[in-house]
Amino acid sequence: MVRFFVDPETLASDSLILTGENAQHAKVLRLRQGEEVLVCDGAGQECLCAISESSGTQWALEVLERRTPQSEAAVAVSVYMAFPKADKLEHVIQKATELGAREIIAFPSARCVSRPDDKSLKKKLERWQKIAQSAAEQSGRGIVPKVLTIPSYAEALARAAQADKALLFYENEQALTLKMALAGEYATVSLLTGPEGGLEEGEVAQARQAGLQVCTLGKRILRCETAPLCALSAVMYDAGEF
Amino acid sequence: MVRFFVDPETLASDSLILTGENAQHAKVLRLRQGEEVLVCDGAGQECLCAISESSGTQWALEVLERRTPQSEAAVAVSVYMAFPKADKLEHVIQKATELGAREIIAFPSARCVSRPDDKSLKKKLERWQKIAQSAAEQSGRGIVPKVLTIPSYAEALARAAQADKALLFYENEQALTLKMALAGEYATVSLLTGPEGGLEEGEVAQARQAGLQVCTLGKRILRCETAPLCALSAVMYDAGEF
Repeated sequence: MVRFFVDPETLASDSLILTGENAQHAKVLRLRQGEEVLVCDGAGQECLCAISESSGTQWALEVLERRTPQSEAAVAVSVYMAFPKADKLEHVIQKATELGAREIIAFPSARCVSRPDDKSLKKKLERWQKIAQSAAEQSGRGIVPKVLTIPSYAEALARAAQADKALLFYENEQALTLKMALAGEYATVSLLTGPEGGLEEGEVAQARQAGLQVCTLGKRILRCETAPLCALSAVMYDAGEF
Repeated sequence: MVRFFVDPETLASDSLILTGENAQHAKVLRLRQGEEVLVCDGAGQECLCAISESSGTQWALEVLERRTPQSEAAVAVSVYMAFPKADKLEHVIQKATELGAREIIAFPSARCVSRPDDKSLKKKLERWQKIAQSAAEQSGRGIVPKVLTIPSYAEALARAAQADKALLFYENEQALTLKMALAGEYATVSLLTGPEGGLEEGEVAQARQAGLQVCTLGKRILRCETAPLCALSAVMYDAGEF
């Protein structure tokens, strides 16, 4: 079913009108009176709606049923990624959204070759959030993952460490597998991975100090954009999502 | 450690010379006499070598130790993908190689919008194989996955069905999870996914008939290039790789 994201205020009323890009999208899809669509506020509310009026340029909707999103994972996974080159971050935002991440957080680390300056950051965050929204629509999510940046590695570690399972993946770790690290119950997971050049040994030690477990993702070296998606897929599998 | 792939014949002798792109690569890396590198035949043989002579344009190597590759997964996974648009297939070849797939097979299905004609296929296969080789070098694999195409859907199913676990992923399947399908022992796995527009119901029935299990990858709709990599990551996790 087609899925639109709107502001929570728009969804407060039982009748609403599609505007802006949503109206454009409805036009492309040639939606007609009587057809059913889903409208979400992107924060956990999903409404089954019927098109009550369609002029060909304007679409009025009536809410038929309010419900919690049915496509969200029970486990809340936060993907922490050291700033990679721009196209890789966009790739990870799109794919991690499809795979069900709850949030995607970019942070600096010693070997990051790319890091947006403060001036361009606001615009980039808007762009990244839009990529997440678009991927959420396409994959049928009820929540749009938040994309955020954290200004320091230490702060990223402190935030990541709050999850039930806070995991850092490091290519020189061989003993602790992800499977061991995920043993037991968990409702929240942080997955932290390094930039193109990897994390420095000192940074890995710092993460351990902050309370993260340091795990392996297997015997092969994964690219910086592959590692978080591999880990996220495995966590969703472990959590019983598929 | 740096890794070169050479023909099996080159690796038959205990002293060898790097040629072509390998020599180029050695030059870029400024490899010097005494340094150790890995040389693989891409088919299961890996040799630890030392650089015995380096002229700056030519590199002679001595084999120190012959061994089986240490970075290969015990489970042999074949990724069967309905022809997507070209850039997506290349993406999947690169990533599936990193993630440890043993082979990547493209095949036609009813809703494929893109399918190379026979004339261009040979050139494309060369290109795809090169992408796999390059990803194998970077990720430290001992085997270069074979990239092949199969001319019909029925033949793809028949080949896929020979694995211990032959699985097709379908967005309308909800009951059978990948976890259920992987229960028990297995040494070989086939993972089959559809093109951009999905597989047709009749094709899914045909796959069942051919002996494949039809599973879900969760409640979210994955893009055609995301599904095989998500499934492959989960199988590697399930098989105890990380």
